[in-house]
Amino acid sequence: MSGFACVGRKVHKIDAFDKVTGRAVYGHDLRIPGMLHGRILRSAHAHARIAEIDARPALGVPGVHAVITAADAKTGNIGFLQDHPVLKGDRVRSFRDEVAAVAASSEEAAEEACSRIIVKYEPLPAVFDPFEAMAPGAPQLHDSAPANIIKFGYDFNEGDADKALESSAFTAEGTFRTHYVTHCCMETCFALAVFGRGGSLTFHSSTQIPYLMQNTLSRVTGVPAWKIRIRQPVIGGAFGSKLDVYPYEIIAILLAQRTGRPVKITYTREEEFRCTPTRQPMVIRMSAGCDREGKLTARKAEAVLDNGAYTSWGITTPHIMLTGISSLYKVPNVSFKAFSVYTNNAYASAFRGYGNPQGTFANEQLIDELALKAGIDPVEFRLRNANTPGSVTPQRFRITTCGLSECIRKAAERIGFGGPKAANEGVGIACMFHVGGGGRVYKSDGCGVIAKLDDFGRLSLMTGATEIGTGSDTAMAMIGAECLGLPLDAVSVINDDTDVGPWDVGIHASRMTFIGGNAVIMACEDIKDQLREHAAPMIGSDPKNLEFRDSKIIDCMNPDRNIEISRVVRAVHFREKGRMIVGKGFYDPPNEFQGKDFRGNVSSTYAFAAHAVRVRVDPSTGKIAVLKFVAAHDVGRAINPLGLEGQVHGAIAQGLGFALSEQLVYDKGRLLNDNFTDYKMLLARDMPAEIEIHFIETDDPEGPFGAKGVSEAGIIPIPAAVANAVADAVGIRIRTLPMTPENVHSALKAAGKAT
Amino acid sequence: MSGFACVGRKVHKIDAFDKVTGRAVYGHDLRIPGMLHGRILRSAHAHARIAEIDARPALGVPGVHAVITAADAKTGNIGFLQDHPVLKGDRVRSFRDEVAAVAASSEEAAEEACSRIIVKYEPLPAVFDPFEAMAPGAPQLHDSAPANIIKFGYDFNEGDADKALESSAFTAEGTFRTHYVTHCCMETCFALAVFGRGGSLTFHSSTQIPYLMQNTLSRVTGVPAWKIRIRQPVIGGAFGSKLDVYPYEIIAILLAQRTGRPVKITYTREEEFRCTPTRQPMVIRMSAGCDREGKLTARKAEAVLDNGAYTSWGITTPHIMLTGISSLYKVPNVSFKAFSVYTNNAYASAFRGYGNPQGTFANEQLIDELALKAGIDPVEFRLRNANTPGSVTPQRFRITTCGLSECIRKAAERIGFGGPKAANEGVGIACMFHVGGGGRVYKSDGCGVIAKLDDFGRLSLMTGATEIGTGSDTAMAMIGAECLGLPLDAVSVINDDTDVGPWDVGIHASRMTFIGGNAVIMACEDIKDQLREHAAPMIGSDPKNLEFRDSKIIDCMNPDRNIEISRVVRAVHFREKGRMIVGKGFYDPPNEFQGKDFRGNVSSTYAFAAHAVRVRVDPSTGKIAVLKFVAAHDVGRAINPLGLEGQVHGAIAQGLGFALSEQLVYDKGRLLNDNFTDYKMLLARDMPAEIEIHFIETDDPEGPFGAKGVSEAGIIPIPAAVANAVADAVGIRIRTLPMTPENVHSALKAAGKAT
Repeated sequence: MSGFACVGRKVHKIDAFDKVTGRAVYGHDLRIPGMLHGRILRSAHAHARIAEIDARPALGVPGVHAVITAADAKTGNIGFLQDHPVLKGDRVRSFRDEVAAVAASSEEAAEEACSRIIVKYEPLPAVFDPFEAMAPGAPQLHDSAPANIIKFGYDFNEGDADKALESSAFTAEGTFRTHYVTHCCMETCFALAVFGRGGSLTFHSSTQIPYLMQNTLSRVTGVPAWKIRIRQPVIGGAFGSKLDVYPYEIIAILLAQRTGRPVKITYTREEEFRCTPTRQPMVIRMSAGCDREGKLTARKAEAVLDNGAYTSWGITTPHIMLTGISSLYKVPNVSFKAFSVYTNNAYASAFRGYGNPQGTFANEQLIDELALKAGIDPVEFRLRNANTPGSVTPQRFRITTCGLSECIRKAAERIGFGGPKAANEGVGIACMFHVGGGGRVYKSDGCGVIAKLDDFGRLSLMTGATEIGTGSDTAMAMIGAECLGLPLDAVSVINDDTDVGPWDVGIHASRMTFIGGNAVIMACEDIKDQLREHAAPMIGSDPKNLEFRDSKIIDCMNPDRNIEISRVVRAVHFREKGRMIVGKGFYDPPNEFQGKDFRGNVSSTYAFAAHAVRVRVDPSTGKIAVLKFVAAHDVGRAINPLGLEGQVHGAIAQGLGFALSEQLVYDKGRLLNDNFTDYKMLLARDMPAEIEIHFIETDDPEGPFGAKGVSEAGIIPIPAAVANAVADAVGIRIRTLPMTPENVHSALKAAGKAT
Repeated sequence: MSGFACVGRKVHKIDAFDKVTGRAVYGHDLRIPGMLHGRILRSAHAHARIAEIDARPALGVPGVHAVITAADAKTGNIGFLQDHPVLKGDRVRSFRDEVAAVAASSEEAAEEACSRIIVKYEPLPAVFDPFEAMAPGAPQLHDSAPANIIKFGYDFNEGDADKALESSAFTAEGTFRTHYVTHCCMETCFALAVFGRGGSLTFHSSTQIPYLMQNTLSRVTGVPAWKIRIRQPVIGGAFGSKLDVYPYEIIAILLAQRTGRPVKITYTREEEFRCTPTRQPMVIRMSAGCDREGKLTARKAEAVLDNGAYTSWGITTPHIMLTGISSLYKVPNVSFKAFSVYTNNAYASAFRGYGNPQGTFANEQLIDELALKAGIDPVEFRLRNANTPGSVTPQRFRITTCGLSECIRKAAERIGFGGPKAANEGVGIACMFHVGGGGRVYKSDGCGVIAKLDDFGRLSLMTGATEIGTGSDTAMAMIGAECLGLPLDAVSVINDDTDVGPWDVGIHASRMTFIGGNAVIMACEDIKDQLREHAAPMIGSDPKNLEFRDSKIIDCMNPDRNIEISRVVRAVHFREKGRMIVGKGFYDPPNEFQGKDFRGNVSSTYAFAAHAVRVRVDPSTGKIAVLKFVAAHDVGRAINPLGLEGQVHGAIAQGLGFALSEQLVYDKGRLLNDNFTDYKMLLARDMPAEIEIHFIETDDPEGPFGAKGVSEAGIIPIPAAVANAVADAVGIRIRTLPMTPENVHSALKAAGKAT
């Protein structure tokens, strides 16, 4: 294991003990004396004018402290384009819209009070399909968006895709449709707003963006940002859903302001399903071409996204979809257009992989179709086109390390490509390309770490890097332990408080281990410099020769000269003009903000993976059984292979759920399945009987100990890999998700292959 | 106000809002899923052999998870001399002794289980008076202490006190007796032990010594110190009582180890009275002399202290008693002897002022007696002997700033010394000398601060400096605000976690504002250096000319050149190779560890005060009414005059309680008054109708903005001042505390003055 003491060892996550023993304190567990409970009254219509709100009956419910509506709670708008009023005063545009809110001494009283608020609506015609929404005469949702088309579109061109397609030896094309799914965080949403001295606000939140949130809360509520402190309890899942600020969070603050009491809002599971944003559904029309040797010539994609009633991060999913479309494999000509359309549906946010799973669902099926047409084995086809180190993609992504070919070979070999198959059995492969070295979405893509080493050799890493269950805390602790040669149990990660942790842009774009890990290294190097300076005279060595291992500082030229690290700390501390050993690091990667032309090296390295699946399709039911799953990932370096495996396992469950079973079912904007009985996540028993996970270590020069970010990667190729395997098994190509038994059976039937 | 923007303003304590709204989270409020409740079974005898403990019946109580006794829970001893077993296996030496402990799912179950444990005792003769304990044939409590005299005594001699007394023009002498009082923290003791990953221990505690506690817990329990994290919730009072580690704390850890669950122990109020340590009671025989001009010639003191059954910090109270005896006023010849004696009483710990209130009770009464004999007004007498700047005391304390004379004059003037008095009315004055610039008790007297300035100009001060209600957080925040020119509400103090705050020796010796404040200044200067470097080119100024005020950096030579601080932070942060603004400071004062000869400049400055009281003694009841109280304190600089006033008000309540009404009443080692009905703390209505507090600002060169430590000072002169006023009122001298109506009436009766 490459001479590392801690990195590369399979260790339990450092937060696992508290979580499995039930000791972890989540937002729902928080109680503050005097705390009230907030509840939100939501729209009864998908689209309506609000004629009148009579909140007075609610005030008569015992225990009610305040009722607020848009009329008496003015705030700024939220949303990516600030098109989203926190409380809706004149008009509702979806069933999830917030019309009024109550703070009461119990959840029951708040619920009862909400039910007594009388809202008179004047229903308006509604629209639930983006194409219908663009049609003349469709209800108009926002003045800023004629024909409901949001003025935030994507148009990327490299070379001439149309021309290249025309002159290609083979082309394939199709229209692909992806559906509504939701994050299914095990912890439902919560917000707890507490006003303190001088009007300062402590906001307890499971946000992924504590520091950006300070800004947004300030802008929307008017509380100065320097009076806002964000505290994060243990977070029970996020997957991108907590990258934005939502109305319930502002409402908790408004209610706390109004009542002078701490106010907590928690969602029921039903509310979580109904009221949190979704993955952005879209329709993608894509074409691809190759030459006779199977070299890709061009890709062209047009996507229309159902934005729902308000903007959140969903509207930017084309950004990441484009990443895969432009840069998975070498493609000289690329054309990409995408835009989002307002409808009266639920609105969409970020979700693991952003648009990349959707784009790759189209992308990687066309690869198989091209391979078939060119008469080339799909594995061989992919290898011929695979990205290579040192290449630059149409978006000017500079590929440094790249293990894509190894991933393809490993996945293909282990799934048994080209080997025997039973009846109705098939194998499929799909690859993915994603940012792996941060993603510069904001002016800074940085993360700060303050490292404190105490008298006993205990290392604290204080950071803004948020842990949402990905294992980033563990990776950062392992990196700290590795740097200083300390046992892992001597490292503590503190990241629950903006007053403590230095700035971090937020946990997104698979960036935390990569960027937080590099910041840990910088802070530890700072500490090592300080320790070397003091240790050298203590053991009569040259500072340059001092290494850190086994909790000691050791002269590598003369290992007999060594000293306990903690002894050095104490010597520095317990003397005249003593000092403490504190290091700091702020790592902002050498990546680039993309221009308006969508070009620029947005990440300082890139992650690659190939997934291969073996499925059996039951022609009588349409049910797809995933018999074996092989995931091969270029992770740069596996800091904690056990954690990485867990992350890929989770991605397989989530990705297969997305591909096969999960779906929010709406009827005219109203959600029909707001529970885990009717919304089918995969259970342990639904998982493939055989799962193999392989890590390709490419030792990325910019990564911490060579690591790349991989937390999103695992979900991206799955729907495509399954669809390719289904095509291999039963010769039908599924272009609409999810591949439920019902949908697959219909497709089989249409092809005359159902039994 | 001397050009300060924040320092010197009267502000509410920064923790006041949360405390008065009930939102502060104290140890008792902590709940951890799966947490068990611990209870302790204590001795039924003041002194006995334990023949047998049958814990089995306790295990039958539903909800009981574990019962432990000394037999199955081996640990190291605790106590200043490590004479104190955590659980007593063979022998109990006082009623508070821990014999067994239970962890159960409820407090009730734990209590019930304790009551079922069967302990067979063989009672031993007990001794409750230190003089009886030294007598031949007395029961021997510890093998290490023949005749029960603890081998940790004090013997200090400067000049020749005996000779000087012989040749003095006037001498006075007396035997003074002080009694048992307790701290009466509003929050009773708690301990919550939580074991986590890899056997790491998070110990939630209201300790005053989080970093020293890591060490002690490790030594006693065997958990490595690098696996121990101390977390401090809001602390409901300490007053020195939490400077040591006590058996209940180790027991919580043992029970958590045994059960694999978090275990919390909380004391009932009765337990708090019975089982927490007390102020060390003592008998002091003291003589003093002066020449014809009233110049002090010598002081001689001998003290015998009742240590109780085990050592804690009580045994070191002579150290601080000596401080006042050697160094209040200029005295060329000093002799001081003190030792502690084991008895079967409660043992004693540190308590605000340590031995100084006791010593000063004797010291300052003899001053009045000498003044009377010399025919000099007691105020004039004190002024003639007052310490002066630049002088050195017999213990080699180097007086730098000294406002004692101003304090004496102010107190005397405002109480109306020499003015008219009604019948049975009297005025009294007493002064005090105490450390005011830290006190080097350990190798380091330091405190560390990490300061983080965020993008919005919010300043976090992370520190090990513990807030126990003295207002130190507020002082540190004000100092930070002053340094950087920020609003006070923009400053946050984080000091609840050893993993976050850098090392601090603990809150004792009135050191926190002085030492923590200096550490804040160092950390803020570090930040200012960083900001100046970046701001200078932004506004075209020389870094040397840049000042910080009104949240701006301003060129003092050209104030039009200025820039918002937060803008500079953002500029540093949001750029290539961005940085964060983090400063650090570790301040260890230039004071000295005392030698075995009790000489050495233990504090880097000293605090002085004079208190004057006007009393009326009711000769028919002996009741002392305090009509007016004037406190004049040399505080160096009043950082927060409102907080300081509160601190002196508190000291007056606590000091008058000590002088007049508070007393733990024991009957053969058994406490008779374990509640606030029978233990009389002063209520608001018992406080003097008129209280004046005056601050003398001597602008100490070593103090933060000139401040000295003052938190203990307020209690020290009070019993002496009251006794002097009583003597002035009715001509009797009370040398035994407390001066309850009963005791005063007896004294009046003995003098033939009762009516």
